[in-house]
Amino acid sequence: MADKKLMGVDLGGTTCKFAILTEDGEIQQRWSIDTNILDEGSHIIPDIIASIQDHLKLYNMTAADFDGIGMGTPGTVDPAQGTVIGAYNLNWKTMQYPKREIEAATGIPFAIDNDVNVAAMGEQWKGAGDKSDNVTLVALGTGIGAGIVSDGILLHGVAGSAGEVGHVTVEPNGYMCTCGKRGCLETVASATGIVHVARDMAEEYAGDSKLKQILDDGDDISSKIVFDCAQAGDKLALMIVDKVCYYLGLGLGNLGNILNPEYLLIGGGVSAAGDFLLTRVQKYFDQFTFPNVRNTTHLRLATLGNTAGVVGAASLARP
Amino acid sequence: MADKKLMGVDLGGTTCKFAILTEDGEIQQRWSIDTNILDEGSHIIPDIIASIQDHLKLYNMTAADFDGIGMGTPGTVDPAQGTVIGAYNLNWKTMQYPKREIEAATGIPFAIDNDVNVAAMGEQWKGAGDKSDNVTLVALGTGIGAGIVSDGILLHGVAGSAGEVGHVTVEPNGYMCTCGKRGCLETVASATGIVHVARDMAEEYAGDSKLKQILDDGDDISSKIVFDCAQAGDKLALMIVDKVCYYLGLGLGNLGNILNPEYLLIGGGVSAAGDFLLTRVQKYFDQFTFPNVRNTTHLRLATLGNTAGVVGAASLARP
Repeated sequence: MADKKLMGVDLGGTTCKFAILTEDGEIQQRWSIDTNILDEGSHIIPDIIASIQDHLKLYNMTAADFDGIGMGTPGTVDPAQGTVIGAYNLNWKTMQYPKREIEAATGIPFAIDNDVNVAAMGEQWKGAGDKSDNVTLVALGTGIGAGIVSDGILLHGVAGSAGEVGHVTVEPNGYMCTCGKRGCLETVASATGIVHVARDMAEEYAGDSKLKQILDDGDDISSKIVFDCAQAGDKLALMIVDKVCYYLGLGLGNLGNILNPEYLLIGGGVSAAGDFLLTRVQKYFDQFTFPNVRNTTHLRLATLGNTAGVVGAASLARP
Repeated sequence: MADKKLMGVDLGGTTCKFAILTEDGEIQQRWSIDTNILDEGSHIIPDIIASIQDHLKLYNMTAADFDGIGMGTPGTVDPAQGTVIGAYNLNWKTMQYPKREIEAATGIPFAIDNDVNVAAMGEQWKGAGDKSDNVTLVALGTGIGAGIVSDGILLHGVAGSAGEVGHVTVEPNGYMCTCGKRGCLETVASATGIVHVARDMAEEYAGDSKLKQILDDGDDISSKIVFDCAQAGDKLALMIVDKVCYYLGLGLGNLGNILNPEYLLIGGGVSAAGDFLLTRVQKYFDQFTFPNVRNTTHLRLATLGNTAGVVGAASLARP
């Protein structure tokens, strides 16, 4: 059938987004439900199944209308088994079986991968990755993760830890990370890492600075406030952004030297700083990359934003 | 046919090695010829063809006896096109067409990739990689290169620079590299890089040391001499080896954090230092890796040595 559909499910800690897409990746329907993480997350899969069934009825569709359902989820995913474990923001501490349960209830083939891998697939297919066989998405959020499509396939590594770019060491004697080692990229360049760098640099800074004033007043800051101050010309904030971009250029440069993707995409909340961030990371990326990588690996901002998840999830279900 | 054969060709700057293997990778015949790089390397492919034809006659074999011929070569390889450019130790400065020429002359399907990729395939298939889908070989020689098999496929990246681990930045303000940037892993951990580190550390060293004595006498040293002195307990040499292993642990640790291979193999001339090297790299690898990578990515010495090239090349020709 030429007009079969794909369903993408983007499961997060607060909401679960759904979309029905054409095989070309055009979104035709979107909806979302709250994620109910009570009772060890035991309501999540039943709620997803009920919502899918409700919407199939609403749109007058059946299992036969779909190539499949794809889902992105936090936690450690076994794509072959269709299982998830250790998704703490879902309260999923024990092994979960979304593939088995959703296929049994809907009769539609189901595929699953972790959220950042799925977002990378979305950007590769319909976003800034331009359908290249070599796309890496680095998501700068509370932490830092990456999804890697290399030579046409999504990489997982032997135990699902391919793409742990947030834990690449960029400062051997740097800040202690939640992972137990020091100097991880996410200790200095995630949203929380940027605030840490900002507080430390503010303490040493003697000049005039609105950012320092906010901190001295005892108010909270965020990575967004740091970037906003920098864009307004605040000297301390500019120094902080420069340091953050140095570490991002070093970490992403080394990822480039190892993988030589065509597009190395920066996404996640911190990437809202846009070209102001990108041009500064580019400077250090150029400094830390091998010439052939510098010339052929292109840094870009991710473009799909909130829909990368459902689009990439749907891409897992392509025939 | 159950008993078809594979041919592997390992083209190097001084010799070209050949082997005929079973489909299971057992070597049945081996020979080699000198590589004649005169006249811009224009004799190389004709010499290879003549040697193949001679040996087929000698062994009373025909094209029909082979699944294919695989070849590893220096330079920048386009595996799909079967072309090579920029193999300077072969005097191949312009585009070369080994696939087209060897297939036309022998009637046997031909596949090609670069030498370190091919060696990684060899180790993955018949060496320390134990047929895992996730094996990276890091070859420590005059320079440092890596071949990466991830999720079952050999990675190339968009422009063939996947695996440029020798140019991962491990010391942002470090030594200038031949590639034009500073602090590349190969400036401190290749055979030549180790000598550079040794000379600099010897200059600052005031204690008693046989290694320092050799240098003070104006004699040349090699990475082998550094490791030999260290194994004999020379304090300066031990400090040098510790520094080299620190950088290797940092560079390989970051490769592990990005790719999570099951086996991360150390090969090349420098790896002759064996377990003495491996245990010291392991210490720093453990320091610089994310816990799940530390637990699931295993550092090992490569085991095939000189035959990794022909075995891996033959693997490219598997049906």
